[in-house]
Amino acid sequence: MTRHVIGLDFGSASARGVLLEADTGRQIASHVHAYRHDTLTTGLPCGEPLAHGWALQVATDYTEAAEAILSAIGRGREVAGIGIGFTASSPMPTLADGTPLSVLHPEDPHAYVKLWKHGAAQGQADRINATGGAFMDRFGGKVSGEWLLAKAAQIAEESPESWDRTERFIEAGDWLVWQLTGHEVRSLGFAAYKAQYDPDTGYPDNVVPGLATRLGRPEPVGNIAGHLSSEWLARTGIIGPCAVAVAVIDSHVVLPAIGAVDHGCFVGALGTSAVSLMLTDAYRPLPEGIEGTAHDGSIRGLWCYEAGQASFGDMLSWFVNAFPRGADRDESFAHYNAAAGWLAPGENRLLALDWWNGNRVPHANSALSGLFVGLTHRSDPVGMYRALLESLCFGMRLMVELYEAGGFEINRVVMTSGLAARNPLLIQIMADVLGRDVEVPEIANPTAVGAAIHGAVASGLVADFGEGAARFGTTTARRYRSDPGAHSVYTRLYRQYEALTRDPVLIAAMTALGDLAATGPAGIRESAERVEDSRARLQQITLEAD
Amino acid sequence: MTRHVIGLDFGSASARGVLLEADTGRQIASHVHAYRHDTLTTGLPCGEPLAHGWALQVATDYTEAAEAILSAIGRGREVAGIGIGFTASSPMPTLADGTPLSVLHPEDPHAYVKLWKHGAAQGQADRINATGGAFMDRFGGKVSGEWLLAKAAQIAEESPESWDRTERFIEAGDWLVWQLTGHEVRSLGFAAYKAQYDPDTGYPDNVVPGLATRLGRPEPVGNIAGHLSSEWLARTGIIGPCAVAVAVIDSHVVLPAIGAVDHGCFVGALGTSAVSLMLTDAYRPLPEGIEGTAHDGSIRGLWCYEAGQASFGDMLSWFVNAFPRGADRDESFAHYNAAAGWLAPGENRLLALDWWNGNRVPHANSALSGLFVGLTHRSDPVGMYRALLESLCFGMRLMVELYEAGGFEINRVVMTSGLAARNPLLIQIMADVLGRDVEVPEIANPTAVGAAIHGAVASGLVADFGEGAARFGTTTARRYRSDPGAHSVYTRLYRQYEALTRDPVLIAAMTALGDLAATGPAGIRESAERVEDSRARLQQITLEAD
Repeated sequence: MTRHVIGLDFGSASARGVLLEADTGRQIASHVHAYRHDTLTTGLPCGEPLAHGWALQVATDYTEAAEAILSAIGRGREVAGIGIGFTASSPMPTLADGTPLSVLHPEDPHAYVKLWKHGAAQGQADRINATGGAFMDRFGGKVSGEWLLAKAAQIAEESPESWDRTERFIEAGDWLVWQLTGHEVRSLGFAAYKAQYDPDTGYPDNVVPGLATRLGRPEPVGNIAGHLSSEWLARTGIIGPCAVAVAVIDSHVVLPAIGAVDHGCFVGALGTSAVSLMLTDAYRPLPEGIEGTAHDGSIRGLWCYEAGQASFGDMLSWFVNAFPRGADRDESFAHYNAAAGWLAPGENRLLALDWWNGNRVPHANSALSGLFVGLTHRSDPVGMYRALLESLCFGMRLMVELYEAGGFEINRVVMTSGLAARNPLLIQIMADVLGRDVEVPEIANPTAVGAAIHGAVASGLVADFGEGAARFGTTTARRYRSDPGAHSVYTRLYRQYEALTRDPVLIAAMTALGDLAATGPAGIRESAERVEDSRARLQQITLEAD
Repeated sequence: MTRHVIGLDFGSASARGVLLEADTGRQIASHVHAYRHDTLTTGLPCGEPLAHGWALQVATDYTEAAEAILSAIGRGREVAGIGIGFTASSPMPTLADGTPLSVLHPEDPHAYVKLWKHGAAQGQADRINATGGAFMDRFGGKVSGEWLLAKAAQIAEESPESWDRTERFIEAGDWLVWQLTGHEVRSLGFAAYKAQYDPDTGYPDNVVPGLATRLGRPEPVGNIAGHLSSEWLARTGIIGPCAVAVAVIDSHVVLPAIGAVDHGCFVGALGTSAVSLMLTDAYRPLPEGIEGTAHDGSIRGLWCYEAGQASFGDMLSWFVNAFPRGADRDESFAHYNAAAGWLAPGENRLLALDWWNGNRVPHANSALSGLFVGLTHRSDPVGMYRALLESLCFGMRLMVELYEAGGFEINRVVMTSGLAARNPLLIQIMADVLGRDVEVPEIANPTAVGAAIHGAVASGLVADFGEGAARFGTTTARRYRSDPGAHSVYTRLYRQYEALTRDPVLIAAMTALGDLAATGPAGIRESAERVEDSRARLQQITLEAD
């Protein structure tokens, strides 16, 4: 009987599974299942409203999705291993036996999964950052409001009674592994990048009272967490024994699927925002501005450094939505890409800063904002669109140059995602800006395939990630060659981009605009009547005799 | 028989005349006549091509227009005085008897009027500025390429034989007065602002060889230059005697028509670009960044300081052309103005620099460019449009603050032009940004009416500009009241705007983008084939096995 591996990719709105043949590596089935409650941002299922910035999910939606997918693609099949990629940090409180608090206390917002993009713990992050601590050294000196520490602190501060009930505080990906196997086995990936775990010193203590006792010692990725339980074998019809791998951060799990399993790989995962991952075989100090690193947290045996751009594809979407050219988004993109492709590097004479969602590298400041400079009467929307593409590539080059300045060796540059596949102009500019050839792997469902390779490694089907990548990963890639002439023009522009990113006058202006925003509508206009007044005033300007 | 005065406004594409009743001040006729050859920018009438940046006019088009207008509105009428506003600096070479060289040498481009916006003498201006000279003190230390000195230098350098033939070098406005009266009488306005004439020391010498002997001692504005000649009385049917006033710069001649004839008046003439004029009864040193000043050059008896914004209405036009909302320009403006009017000050959280045509104050650098900062996913076109309106007002405030810092007294702020009349939102924001009430005079054909008041003063119909303004000028104005709450928000934003105008990093980026532009298409792309190549390359990206 043919053996298989399954990869599960738990994203923000749905989960996706792929089934691969163990011997050939061939994808033979895939299945997508949307979460029953999607993301709760305005209220709980019981109707209890949520404040601005909250983003929750329901733990049982994940098991429901897992059962649906595993049944759809695994029933009656021999599956040797399952790997899981999961959004992070998306932690949740449970009892000691894994029962989600949201099952017991559906009326308590703190009982639910706080999804990675839950923004209401920023205040806690700010306080943690103000205090500081030695544990920050490997994480750029700053904890994000999206990370586990801030989210734990929010529960402990805002609802001590919920925190008292919390016997385990666990990433949803680890919780799913626990449900499938019956064993609470945590991922070093989640622990290191999202909870500042250090193999030598453990989790940071004294940040959130009682947190350390609610966590658990994590395992390297690629390890087996356990086997799919007999209950789950029965529910899904899968034929075991089936190893379940330690869970992995979704943006990291893709690496083996695109063949990025070696020292010197620089990978850009280009989505709504962008994540950059840099693989090295030896530890080097974190370059200033790079956000975090861990060993055994992404690919076993390698250090993986992480940074990113807070806005990427969503900035391009903003532009085509604001300034449409065509009946819909696709037509607008087609128009702008075609027209911008005819411009030579520098011909738009514009420069943009890609900070529509604030800045991650080098400032880690979400209050910063985007910029266009160089506007004249000859500027046009197509040139502005191209300047946005260029700014995304300059932002990527900023990270590449930080690594280079830190002595890192970059042997390959790989860009992945639907955006990378769909927008050749973007990738050509990327190659020209970076001065390096860029590979775009051609593979369907890369994140889920990466998860499947973790399952293959964990089950022993393959000896290591290299063998897993070779058997299950991509075999073809588009290669975009960097043009030296274009690179030279872009280098002149990039020097200006870089100077702008560190310009104190500009940062002060952005901060002042952010402060204006932070004061809220009430601070800007005393009331809605104020604007009505002003409008009435405008319509009744006195016509006066001199 | 009823007596009249006539005002003539010679603009860039056409001339306009108004006929006013001397006793009542009532406008009873107006007439517009477009120049036969408009502006020559690509070639001479004989077909001889012109290089990039040239902008010429044909002197006889002005006399043709003058005859048409004076006949249309003056025939059979008793006209006591004519005043003339004219674009400047628009100088031309003639023989000693006033014959334009373009009549004698129609094949020589240097024989024509170099219109104010002729940009091909910038190189000469740069060389003059590099040399410097004491005469620059009252003109901000910089001669513009649009001014007479640079244009004379261009002829002397590029065509010594044309310069040899030039017996008189004269502003077209002064030449027209000469034609109408038979007397070469020059205007102190043109001489002081456009040829750096100083009543004590005369014209700067040693800048252009032989220039001083081709010019002439100017008369204060409001003086009589002579009477309409019997030949012109015959040609137009006007009943004399008819005094002709000394000519005036068109952007200055409007002052008496809008009642700006007193110490402490600050006037913004808001057009494609904007000119600001500041009237004072005593001399004060030129504030840094302000461009020039003269006594008796705009309103007799007052000092008039001049500065401006290189881009104004044309920047708003750029925006609605680039990002239309509606079937045409008017609909787009209506859409954006209506929607932007609902935003409270600061609500767009954006800041712009209004440098689409480069910057006049404080940098006098046409290579600088415009900027948007504060862009986020919540930004929208309406907010961007409002940021442009606000930046125009911040640019005006920059000049007001320069005057205030220089100890000038500002008693009134007056904004004039069609744009000021048509766009109440702009003017309300202006009042809120400046923290001062703003008056917008209501008057038809203000520039021509201002010219007519010069005619009335020159003819002795009125005793002075105050009486002329009272009789012929505007009697009503819209008054926009400054709102203290809005002013306070705008002051916070203005401080950031001001810091950005002096930000060396930003200036360096703009300069680099300008340099890129200056290298021209050849510098950016080696050839058109280069782009074709790149595009072909994009379509043929190698699909490679890894």
